[in-house]
Amino acid sequence: MITVLAGGVGAARLLSGLVRTQRGDDITAIVNVGDDLELYGLHISPDLDTVTYTLAERIDPGRGWGLADETWHAMATLGELGGPDWFNLGDRDLGTHLYRTGRLHEGATLAEVTAEITNALGVDVRIVPATNDRLRTKVSVMDPGLGGPSHEIDFQRYFVERAHSVPITGVRFQGAEAATPAPGVLDAIGQAERVVIAPSNPIVSIAPVLAVPGIRQAVTERRDDVVAVSPIVAGAALKGPADRMLDELGLESSVVGIARWYTSLAATLVIDRADAALAGAVEAEGMRCVVTDTVMSTPDVAGTLGATVLAGHTT
Amino acid sequence: MITVLAGGVGAARLLSGLVRTQRGDDITAIVNVGDDLELYGLHISPDLDTVTYTLAERIDPGRGWGLADETWHAMATLGELGGPDWFNLGDRDLGTHLYRTGRLHEGATLAEVTAEITNALGVDVRIVPATNDRLRTKVSVMDPGLGGPSHEIDFQRYFVERAHSVPITGVRFQGAEAATPAPGVLDAIGQAERVVIAPSNPIVSIAPVLAVPGIRQAVTERRDDVVAVSPIVAGAALKGPADRMLDELGLESSVVGIARWYTSLAATLVIDRADAALAGAVEAEGMRCVVTDTVMSTPDVAGTLGATVLAGHTT
Repeated sequence: MITVLAGGVGAARLLSGLVRTQRGDDITAIVNVGDDLELYGLHISPDLDTVTYTLAERIDPGRGWGLADETWHAMATLGELGGPDWFNLGDRDLGTHLYRTGRLHEGATLAEVTAEITNALGVDVRIVPATNDRLRTKVSVMDPGLGGPSHEIDFQRYFVERAHSVPITGVRFQGAEAATPAPGVLDAIGQAERVVIAPSNPIVSIAPVLAVPGIRQAVTERRDDVVAVSPIVAGAALKGPADRMLDELGLESSVVGIARWYTSLAATLVIDRADAALAGAVEAEGMRCVVTDTVMSTPDVAGTLGATVLAGHTT
Repeated sequence: MITVLAGGVGAARLLSGLVRTQRGDDITAIVNVGDDLELYGLHISPDLDTVTYTLAERIDPGRGWGLADETWHAMATLGELGGPDWFNLGDRDLGTHLYRTGRLHEGATLAEVTAEITNALGVDVRIVPATNDRLRTKVSVMDPGLGGPSHEIDFQRYFVERAHSVPITGVRFQGAEAATPAPGVLDAIGQAERVVIAPSNPIVSIAPVLAVPGIRQAVTERRDDVVAVSPIVAGAALKGPADRMLDELGLESSVVGIARWYTSLAATLVIDRADAALAGAVEAEGMRCVVTDTVMSTPDVAGTLGATVLAGHTT
C-alpha cells in the first residue's frame, strides 16, 4: 500500500510513474480540493480531474490539463453571450463537470462521485479527495490597480484569471477547520508502507490537504516512512508559481526551503541532480536527501522516479 | 405593438413570420417556462431558447431545437461516465445554459438573463418569460410498468425521456399559484393592438403561461383583439403530442376542440384550409373563424400566416 498526497500535474505524472512498478489498486492518491470552484452552477475539481485524466491516459498532453481531442464550442457561445470565459472548459471535459454536479445534487459525496468517474474511466488507482467538505483556497494578493492594501480572492481567480502574475501576501484554506477527512484518508496514511508527498505546489496544493484536521497529524506520525519529492528544481518551479509564492511568503525558493517546509512531516526529500550541491544543506534541516532525476519529461523518468521514491534511495 | 403567447417550435415559426412584416421591437413574445428544468445543476429553458435561436436564425433546421452546426462531446463524456443522458444538450447550446445558470446564481432574474441573451444574439423581438418564478409542468401518466394508478412526473421526463408515448391523465403547473407575471407581461397584453395565441400545445405550452395569476384575466379582457392559431390541423398536431393529450384528457382533437378550449380567451381562431369544413362548427363555439394555410413549411407561408393573424382575416 502506497499513499500519495497529490495536487495536479506534478502529482499526476508521479502517479503515472508509480503505476509502472506498482499495482494501481495498491495506490491511494489523496487529492487537493482547495482549487475546486463553482462556476455557472457546475462543481469543478481541477486536481481530481488532472490526476484522473492522466491515469486514464486521456489527458491532453500539450496543455497538461483537460481531455485530449477537445473542442471549445460551449465556451464560444459563452463568450458570444458576454459571459465570464476566463476559466476555459472544453466540451468533453464539461461532461465530467455535468456528471459530478448532477450526482452532488442527488446527494452523493465528492468521494463517491470521484470513485464513479475513475471506475468508469478504468483507473485502478484509488483517487480520493482530501475531504468531502467544502474547502477553498483563498489567496491574498497585492493589486496596485486597486490602490489599497492586499485583498483576498479565490484561488482560481489568482491562478487562472490573473495567470498567477500578481504578488501574494497570504494563503488561507476557507472551511478547513470544519472539514473532516474523506472516508479512508486517515487509514490510507496510517497503513501505507510509504507515504509520498508529490512534487506539487507545497503552499496551494499540499498545504490544503494537510489543513484538513487530522491529516497533518497522521502524516507526522508516519514521518519515518514519508518521502517528499521537491517541486523546486534549481530554484524554480517546473510549472506554476510555487517558486514566486515561496519567495513572496518569505520562504526560500530552493530545495533547502522545501526541506524546512517539510522536515516535520517527512524523513526523506528527493531532489533533482541539478540541486545535488544542496544535499548537505537539505540534510542539515533534518531530512535524508536522495538525489535523482525528478523532471518527469518522459514516462521512463517518471517510472524511475517512482521506484526511487518507494525505495527511499536511488536503486 | 403585438403580443404573442408562445411555446416552442410552432410559436417560433409564427414569430419568424411576423417579423417579415412587423418591426421586431414592436413584438413581445411571452414564453412558457413550464418546460424548464434543472439538470446537472444547469437551468435549461427549452421554449425560451427555441424562440430565441429561431429568431436569431441560429436554430438547427433539421431538429427544430438547439443550435445549428452542433457537436455532442459533453454528452459523449456524460454517457461514458454512466450519467443520465436522456436530455440531449449540444456543446454550443451548453454555453447558453452555462451563461443563464451563472447569471441566475448571481441574482439576475430569468427575464433579465433572457434579455441579455437575445441582445447578444441580435434578436430585436422582446422575448419575456411568462414569470421569473419557478413554475413547472407536471404530467400524470399511466404507466403499466409500475402496475399502480397514474403517477406524476416532470414534463421533460414525459416529453423527452418517454418520448411522450405514455397516456396522460392530468397536467398540473407546480408553483403557478405563487408566481407573478414577469415585469411588462401584463402591460404587453393590455396595450397590444393584437394578442396572438401561437399554434403551440394548448395544454402544456399555452396553459402554463395562462396559469400565472393575472395573465388569463388580462387576455380575457382583450378577447376581441385576441387571435388564436389552431395547433391542430386535420385532427392532428403537426409536432408533439397535443392531439393525443387532448384525446386523453377527454377534449376533442380538432379545431372545434381548440375553439372550445380558447373561446373564452380569443374572439378569432385561425384554422388550416384542411379544416375549412369545420369553420361553421368553430363559429358555433362563439369564435370568428379565419381559414388559411397554417402549416409553416416555408418562411413565406409563415409570413403570410403572420399577416393574416394580424389582420384578423385573410388578405
